[in-house]
Amino acid sequence: MALGIFDSGIGGLTVFKSIATRFPKLDMIYFGDTARVPYGNKSPETIVRYTLECTKHLVDNYKIDALVLACNTASSHALKTLHDEFHIPVLGVIDAGVKNAVDVSSNRKVAVIATHATIKSKSYNKVFQLMNADIDIVSLPCPLFVPLVEEALIDGDMVETIVRETLKPIKNIGIDTIILGCTHYPVLKSVIAKVIPNVNIVDSTTYIVTDVLDLNINLEESGVRKILITDESHAFNSLKNILVGDIDVEVIKL
Amino acid sequence: MALGIFDSGIGGLTVFKSIATRFPKLDMIYFGDTARVPYGNKSPETIVRYTLECTKHLVDNYKIDALVLACNTASSHALKTLHDEFHIPVLGVIDAGVKNAVDVSSNRKVAVIATHATIKSKSYNKVFQLMNADIDIVSLPCPLFVPLVEEALIDGDMVETIVRETLKPIKNIGIDTIILGCTHYPVLKSVIAKVIPNVNIVDSTTYIVTDVLDLNINLEESGVRKILITDESHAFNSLKNILVGDIDVEVIKL
Repeated sequence: MALGIFDSGIGGLTVFKSIATRFPKLDMIYFGDTARVPYGNKSPETIVRYTLECTKHLVDNYKIDALVLACNTASSHALKTLHDEFHIPVLGVIDAGVKNAVDVSSNRKVAVIATHATIKSKSYNKVFQLMNADIDIVSLPCPLFVPLVEEALIDGDMVETIVRETLKPIKNIGIDTIILGCTHYPVLKSVIAKVIPNVNIVDSTTYIVTDVLDLNINLEESGVRKILITDESHAFNSLKNILVGDIDVEVIKL
Repeated sequence: MALGIFDSGIGGLTVFKSIATRFPKLDMIYFGDTARVPYGNKSPETIVRYTLECTKHLVDNYKIDALVLACNTASSHALKTLHDEFHIPVLGVIDAGVKNAVDVSSNRKVAVIATHATIKSKSYNKVFQLMNADIDIVSLPCPLFVPLVEEALIDGDMVETIVRETLKPIKNIGIDTIILGCTHYPVLKSVIAKVIPNVNIVDSTTYIVTDVLDLNINLEESGVRKILITDESHAFNSLKNILVGDIDVEVIKL
């Protein structure tokens, strides 16, 4: 038995790392659909279909006892379907990001940056509403951030220009907190902080650890870790090494 | 019977348009694997597998009598396999680009810009060698250009900065010709020309028309045109309208 972690690509390794560090004895298996990334510009139907296929592979072949959907796009569109289809707890990452923002924002003005598909789903707005959080929310799609990260382009002049130009609409509008509403974006956190200084930059990785505790799974196993990907894409190894270091990787066909 | 045109995404519509304009009565069916684009950062095995799947769909369901592989990445890796698997003529786009460059370069110094996978395959260098063209070739991967085009980000300050930064290595090195070694790149041609002025910018769309004539297919049919895509991605319609206007589109599952 192990905890499964799913993402469209390699961005979810930021969530994997956060959980793995906190629970060193937890068995964890990561699934990155690197052959079909990005998900964030795809239609809801395709996002749900791909997420189901990948989850089925984890459930059938690795007997996972719970799943973290470490992809905001998949969490926005596929969470309900996964709950209906599989008899294991499935944890999305939207709630954790919202809790974090509600905790740190002083002036109650928050920006959510995410993929087109996440923004269109209004999933963040819905969770803010459910929490009765009296917060002004501004949403901004950042469609080039996932390609940047998947290409391991994570610093330098060009990256800074892309981040600056993309975030221009939320600069100087009085927000005090930015939610990184995509698990790829924490990789660009230092560039984002440079471009928009003096705001809280939050993501789901802090609170997801508490949510994992609530799953009541066995946290004291052998600490086995494995990464499955659907394609060894160009920049995979360099980015994997930056994010999580030396972990066994297997390429599978779906 | 119809001519099939295949691309990983919507970039190949530049080739589609060139052929469609020259042969208004030719029946043509375009297949864009928009659910799994980009191909250019994937492994050769995955590129071949996906290209085979899509071609099989065209052959089985639309009885195409010839195929233009309007994707340099697929042409670089899958052309031989397609020749072996299907009993129809299959035309890649590499030869057409090289012929064009050989014709227009005066100083015999040419840059090839393309995806990682195309550059790694050395497919352009091999065709230059086969033609005994005495030309110095410089190759440069441009991994962000496909995501830009697939997002319909095709002009403006940010796009210009990305193009300028990416092309810096081939500026001021004495080349007189740039081959756009990816069918997405012609969409960015005016930005490329602005960033590197006074060079010939060539692609496969000019010479591919001659290659189509050599296929000896029936060019006088009903002029039926259709586009198949595997996902209606975020920016598909706006870009399709810019490139080819009002053509019937069907979304299929693969």
